[in-house]
Amino acid sequence: MTLSNDLLLKAAKGISTDRTPIWLMRQAGRILPEYRKVREKAKDFKVMVKTPELAAEVTIQPVDILQVDAAIIFSDILVIPEAMGLDYLMEENKGPVFPKRIETASDLNSVHVAATEELDYVYQAIQLTRRGLNGRVPLIGFAGAPWTIFAYMTEGKGSKTFSHAKKMLYLQPELSHRLLNMITDSTINYLRGQIKAGADIIQIFDSWAGVLSPDQYSEFSLRYIKRICDAIQDVPKIVFPKGAFFARAEMERLDCQVVGLDWNMGIQESRSLMPSKVLQGNLDPCALYGTLANVKAEAHKLIDGFGTGGHIANLGHGLYPDTEVDKVKCFINEVKEYSASKQKVKS
Amino acid sequence: MTLSNDLLLKAAKGISTDRTPIWLMRQAGRILPEYRKVREKAKDFKVMVKTPELAAEVTIQPVDILQVDAAIIFSDILVIPEAMGLDYLMEENKGPVFPKRIETASDLNSVHVAATEELDYVYQAIQLTRRGLNGRVPLIGFAGAPWTIFAYMTEGKGSKTFSHAKKMLYLQPELSHRLLNMITDSTINYLRGQIKAGADIIQIFDSWAGVLSPDQYSEFSLRYIKRICDAIQDVPKIVFPKGAFFARAEMERLDCQVVGLDWNMGIQESRSLMPSKVLQGNLDPCALYGTLANVKAEAHKLIDGFGTGGHIANLGHGLYPDTEVDKVKCFINEVKEYSASKQKVKS
Repeated sequence: MTLSNDLLLKAAKGISTDRTPIWLMRQAGRILPEYRKVREKAKDFKVMVKTPELAAEVTIQPVDILQVDAAIIFSDILVIPEAMGLDYLMEENKGPVFPKRIETASDLNSVHVAATEELDYVYQAIQLTRRGLNGRVPLIGFAGAPWTIFAYMTEGKGSKTFSHAKKMLYLQPELSHRLLNMITDSTINYLRGQIKAGADIIQIFDSWAGVLSPDQYSEFSLRYIKRICDAIQDVPKIVFPKGAFFARAEMERLDCQVVGLDWNMGIQESRSLMPSKVLQGNLDPCALYGTLANVKAEAHKLIDGFGTGGHIANLGHGLYPDTEVDKVKCFINEVKEYSASKQKVKS
Repeated sequence: MTLSNDLLLKAAKGISTDRTPIWLMRQAGRILPEYRKVREKAKDFKVMVKTPELAAEVTIQPVDILQVDAAIIFSDILVIPEAMGLDYLMEENKGPVFPKRIETASDLNSVHVAATEELDYVYQAIQLTRRGLNGRVPLIGFAGAPWTIFAYMTEGKGSKTFSHAKKMLYLQPELSHRLLNMITDSTINYLRGQIKAGADIIQIFDSWAGVLSPDQYSEFSLRYIKRICDAIQDVPKIVFPKGAFFARAEMERLDCQVVGLDWNMGIQESRSLMPSKVLQGNLDPCALYGTLANVKAEAHKLIDGFGTGGHIANLGHGLYPDTEVDKVKCFINEVKEYSASKQKVKS
């Protein structure tokens, strides 16, 4: 299918575009009243994730309402542990909880490498979304980085420190590598399924990259992200290593086109550490709490900082649920107009 | 009083020592059965903080038990908001909660700049501790950085994102600066009181530095830390900006002798960004979950990384409460012996 707006794919491939493309992490989510309505109807978050019609509906909402340049399939990174045999609950305002977590070698025997077909409901949602989008914008598929998935499976829930997860890395490194390998194989199967179903580009979220030391990050995270990047060759790849500022030089050597920055990471420093990468990001999500005038100023600062090429505009983290829709629309619109006007002056 | 062990003060002043001095953030705390006994007796955390005899007792415990090279006065950074008129509760396993938080200009009228004498119970604890230590090791005084204190006062509790606190920075920058100035004045009064009572060196904890963007950090945190550093001239100063890797070049220009690193910050990079500073840190607290052999190896790696001068050994964050005392002792002992042996070879 030919896309009528292929700005994101062009930018990801390093092709010059008339303006900077933009999408936002968590764009399909609680900030939209339309999303909250579907969520209410579905009662449970996981029902939404597992019902392709509902997942497709909320995936398309921000394309219509916010006019972003891409859709990202509505799902959760924790579908992988679930497909591997480790169930989780999503508690409102509390985040995910695993009734059982992986602590020992025998716990490891209770999980398996997820086969591609075990996540069929996601591929169905992708197919439905593609039909609904009808070529308007590209569709982003995604998965968690193996370390981030490992962190949830061993910690059993969200955490500021992930000290249980890290304890396993320090005390049982071999067991850790076995589990990380199983997650990696599952993730490769899963991303291949998403691409076959119609994902145009994929993003790997390493949400808990920042809790590891540089040495541990190389050993327990980056090597598995590398394995995924090497295995997936059909579509462009975005890697978002939240908090891993120290790994940027190593990121440059990954086989991916785009690296996402969080709002702590300086633009110029990141450009010089990763000269071959397109950069994505990196507005502080809290900047959208400002007045409309401030939000516009932040959009200008962002575009001035990244320049008009080699950049995909986004936040440095997911949208916070209490962000006002008007501010989000203002930011998106200003990024589009301001980058277009700068690009015009340049050419 | 002449100190029989003044390694920490010497190292902080850049004077060469026979071995690397070591102390640990949260060394007086839940890892010690002796601490837990006092805590049980006192019932409440805040009773311990406000009872000079109890605070002095647990401050001295790690000097006896762990053989660290310094004591740090047992207290809490939130005594400052309390003295300013904003009360907090410390809930077990939940952290601090403020029944009322600062949201508006009128809320600001309900707090005042804390006078030195309002924190008299801390100075009493310092005096008692000095007597108990009897010159064995130096005593560290401390306070939170104004941004970190502001974050708690406006968020009302701990948070992963501190989005309420940051919302205030974006929406009400003038109000934010007014509150930050009040906190800064209170903190200067407080640190002067601690030094007068006998603190030999002070540390400023900017625990939530890492949630701010580089621009916001300069404007809302660093400028107030600078004001404190400029105002306090009688003792050496340590600044610990957890997560603010991006501010290291600016830290170099602060009037402080020592900068604390978290475990994400690379040693060589930090040395080159802050050539004039003594560095403190930066073992990942989770590394103490390893086997004794691993803990020893981590101690060697740390000393090899920092070298035998310009370094105060510590963790990159506070000790986690479930760390085993034997591992902590092993780490401390190994840092002492290994750095002494390396220093001997050098000389």
